[in-house]
Amino acid sequence: MPIITVKLAKGRSLQTKRKLVQALTETAVSLLDVKSEWVTVLIEEYDRENWASNGKLHSEKFGKGFGKKGAK
Amino acid sequence: MPIITVKLAKGRSLQTKRKLVQALTETAVSLLDVKSEWVTVLIEEYDRENWASNGKLHSEKFGKGFGKKGAK
Amino acid sequence: MPIITVKLAKGRSLQTKRKLVQALTETAVSLLDVKSEWVTVLIEEYDRENWASNGKLHSEKFGKGFGKKGAK
Amino acid sequence: MPIITVKLAKGRSLQTKRKLVQALTETAVSLLDVKSEWVTVLIEEYDRENWASNGKLHSEKFGKGFGKKGAK
Amino acid sequence: MPIITVKLAKGRSLQTKRKLVQALTETAVSLLDVKSEWVTVLIEEYDRENWASNGKLHSEKFGKGFGKKGAK
Amino acid sequence: MPIITVKLAKGRSLQTKRKLVQALTETAVSLLDVKSEWVTVLIEEYDRENWASNGKLHSEKFGKGFGKKGAK
Repeated sequence: MPIITVKLAKGRSLQTKRKLVQALTETAVSLLDVKSEWVTVLIEEYDRENWASNGKLHSEKFGKGFGKKGAK
Repeated sequence: MPIITVKLAKGRSLQTKRKLVQALTETAVSLLDVKSEWVTVLIEEYDRENWASNGKLHSEKFGKGFGKKGAK
Repeated sequence: MPIITVKLAKGRSLQTKRKLVQALTETAVSLLDVKSEWVTVLIEEYDRENWASNGKLHSEKFGKGFGKKGAK
Repeated sequence: MPIITVKLAKGRSLQTKRKLVQALTETAVSLLDVKSEWVTVLIEEYDRENWASNGKLHSEKFGKGFGKKGAK
Repeated sequence: MPIITVKLAKGRSLQTKRKLVQALTETAVSLLDVKSEWVTVLIEEYDRENWASNGKLHSEKFGKGFGKKGAK
Repeated sequence: MPIITVKLAKGRSLQTKRKLVQALTETAVSLLDVKSEWVTVLIEEYDRENWASNGKLHSEKFGKGFGKKGAK
């Protein structure tokens, strides 16, 4: 029943996504008293030009990429 | 006023989308006491590698495609 | 697999909600080539003071209520 | 930067929420190459009468409660 | 057509909400080449115990309240 | 802390996005008693074939484009 949505910068590998959904599902199962097959995980990828903090687009703050790439 | 969002696997045809938004809007109008022009429908398409259930990505569970394609 | 979210003004009866989720699910099944048990429907209710169009809160445009109640 | 949203049935304790946000944040940090202070977690709680699967409201399928309470 | 959603801590006054939706709508109209009546604004209020950053619930980091109340 | 999401038709320029996130952030700071660095803005772009009102897809109502392009 829980639906977990992860909004993040575009570009993670399939391998990262595979591990991510598995780990998030295990967390939900162990803490929320739900069955594994009830858990849905959605990954929503954003271009850095569509994400801003402190009034600035991340494409301009951090350049291209994702995660700590480009960030100080 | 109602906003109906449909999250689903990428790949439906324009014809399917056309029928879908019409049918959802008619349902809202007939059950919710609203005018047709108040109803907004948004379609949000996901790659199967961005949707998981039971801890597994749908691209790996079902292969490429959408709907029952690839599902048992 | 589809997740249908309906954002609307607070206050519909349980009977309306029951019919709504049934009708939306049937629409999804008939048009999207999915099984009924794959379809999730979420209802998200908003106070009219948290919904605005044309720059005005609906609580002030339409008064209390939902649907066409209070609307011209 | 990642924003993790968890939609679930209303009623978890503060202690459960505390552990949940900590565990989800740790998962994001360890798999997504982000700093802990970049991770936001939002918990969105639904009444069971606002959540449906297979065309039926969970309040009617499972009764009151959350998690496996009321479910077979 | 644009739909602007503001997720924030619960507790702003009606007067604040009124000004907020007006200002956001004006921004959309002036920058996005849309008509005022096309713009919808939704306000989504969260209890601080449902919002976390850096792995900690805001109710525990900041106490009750909203905005800078309780924050250093 | 506020997260502002703008759903709109695809196609705005980088310059428009830059101004938009800056203006929305300033509005939040001036009205919500928050710090600028707490404000996140997400832009979610939709193809016109994924947005409908009054039961019709905007790609069919308005043609290609965004804003008032194609609209009467």
